[in-house]
Amino acid sequence: MFIIGELINGMYQKVGKAILEKDKAYIKSLARKQLDAGSDALDLNCGPASRDIVGDMRWLVETVQEEASCILCLDSTKPAAIEEGLKAARNKTIINSSSADIEKLEIYIPMAKKYKSSLIALTMDKKGVPQDKDRRLELAAQILAFAQENDFSSDNIYIDPIVLPVNVAQNQLLNILEVIKDFKMISTPAPKAVVGLSNISQGSKDRSLINRTFVVMAQGFGLDAAILDPLDQMLMDAVITADLILNKNIYCDSYIDAYKKSKKVH
Amino acid sequence: MFIIGELINGMYQKVGKAILEKDKAYIKSLARKQLDAGSDALDLNCGPASRDIVGDMRWLVETVQEEASCILCLDSTKPAAIEEGLKAARNKTIINSSSADIEKLEIYIPMAKKYKSSLIALTMDKKGVPQDKDRRLELAAQILAFAQENDFSSDNIYIDPIVLPVNVAQNQLLNILEVIKDFKMISTPAPKAVVGLSNISQGSKDRSLINRTFVVMAQGFGLDAAILDPLDQMLMDAVITADLILNKNIYCDSYIDAYKKSKKVH
Repeated sequence: MFIIGELINGMYQKVGKAILEKDKAYIKSLARKQLDAGSDALDLNCGPASRDIVGDMRWLVETVQEEASCILCLDSTKPAAIEEGLKAARNKTIINSSSADIEKLEIYIPMAKKYKSSLIALTMDKKGVPQDKDRRLELAAQILAFAQENDFSSDNIYIDPIVLPVNVAQNQLLNILEVIKDFKMISTPAPKAVVGLSNISQGSKDRSLINRTFVVMAQGFGLDAAILDPLDQMLMDAVITADLILNKNIYCDSYIDAYKKSKKVH
Repeated sequence: MFIIGELINGMYQKVGKAILEKDKAYIKSLARKQLDAGSDALDLNCGPASRDIVGDMRWLVETVQEEASCILCLDSTKPAAIEEGLKAARNKTIINSSSADIEKLEIYIPMAKKYKSSLIALTMDKKGVPQDKDRRLELAAQILAFAQENDFSSDNIYIDPIVLPVNVAQNQLLNILEVIKDFKMISTPAPKAVVGLSNISQGSKDRSLINRTFVVMAQGFGLDAAILDPLDQMLMDAVITADLILNKNIYCDSYIDAYKKSKKVH
């Protein structure tokens, strides 16, 4: 599975402080740790306290690039910040994210095309997050239809069904798992499926246990990518083992070490 | 999920010795531990060293019944041993197991009917364990057709797709997961699906990690029951959390404790 490390996010106090104080060493070290733990890409989010999101996004991209050549996932609700990140990025990028609203897709699909970026698109719109599977699928179809009309290949799109916390929407989780499989069937080439994992355990006690149990089930349903905490060792072991079971890593007795070594090419 | 504790099996040295020496205290303690850990049923297998399998099976059933009133899973390749266990059992029983061979089904289906027992039936026959999904499904259909002809309701049947070790049959595991879902669709009422879990990690290094990752994925595909080590705390936590995600336990912050307490009615 494609792992997007979530830790460079200004909502975490230390990261927010590092962005404010332009503490390159802290950001670089967090980038390195996440890559060494097996991340394929790093999410960059300036956080709610940023006073200059456009400038901070550029600084984050440039800082991380001084440390490693990895795929960057530019995470903001501000199109100008994302575009600034795209301009600064030297390697592959993922825009995080568009909703399914046409006026958002009209901004982000042309932007993704212009900068040869992939795009995460959420199955939600102005009316909010769907409460059932059909509506999620309908919004995914809306995203993919718009992409097709605009000559943006669907395999550059990561559809996010929006994982809800188990303590508030327990009865929706099987639907969310199943719709991951359905996403792949409504377009050729198939889009990818991504989740922002940590939301599942928001407000719960044993967050790591709930996170790793859910992600493994989602991998069974065909999940391609997850935004998660790669420093959660047990979570990463579960993800790597699920890939093994799904025949996506080659078995050897030390398959977890082998996986991590295979990622250390940054 | 329905948990069948696997530890009372004579192939484990201490259990084999306890059976040989008729050490009731050891067997009872192993029964109690497995039930306290959240087992719904206990597998009883005299093991390869038993010199009197029929007598030993009776002794195991009687000994466990002195400790607890739980469902017993009578595990033997000898029909006479299984029937002796059925005669001695005061509570619900599961016969473990028949193959898909008609001559085996001709023994075990009438026996299950006579003693009002459920039956585990393996998707294998004299030709061996299937190497693909279609053959597994074909053998499941053969089992269910035979049951129907003999007025044995398919919801009393646990179909076992036979989990193969990841280090020898890695490319078959997704098929095995998917066929669990397919089993449910070929008969009304649907049969149940069961796996003997530990086989997945036979010969591997981190057995518990592989076991718990596989079982959680299988639960996503609709697995109803597993024969496993209920004293593996992390495995049980994963199973209980998967049930939570699938909306089969009610959420509360201490859902794992709540689950285990709910089982302590034996």
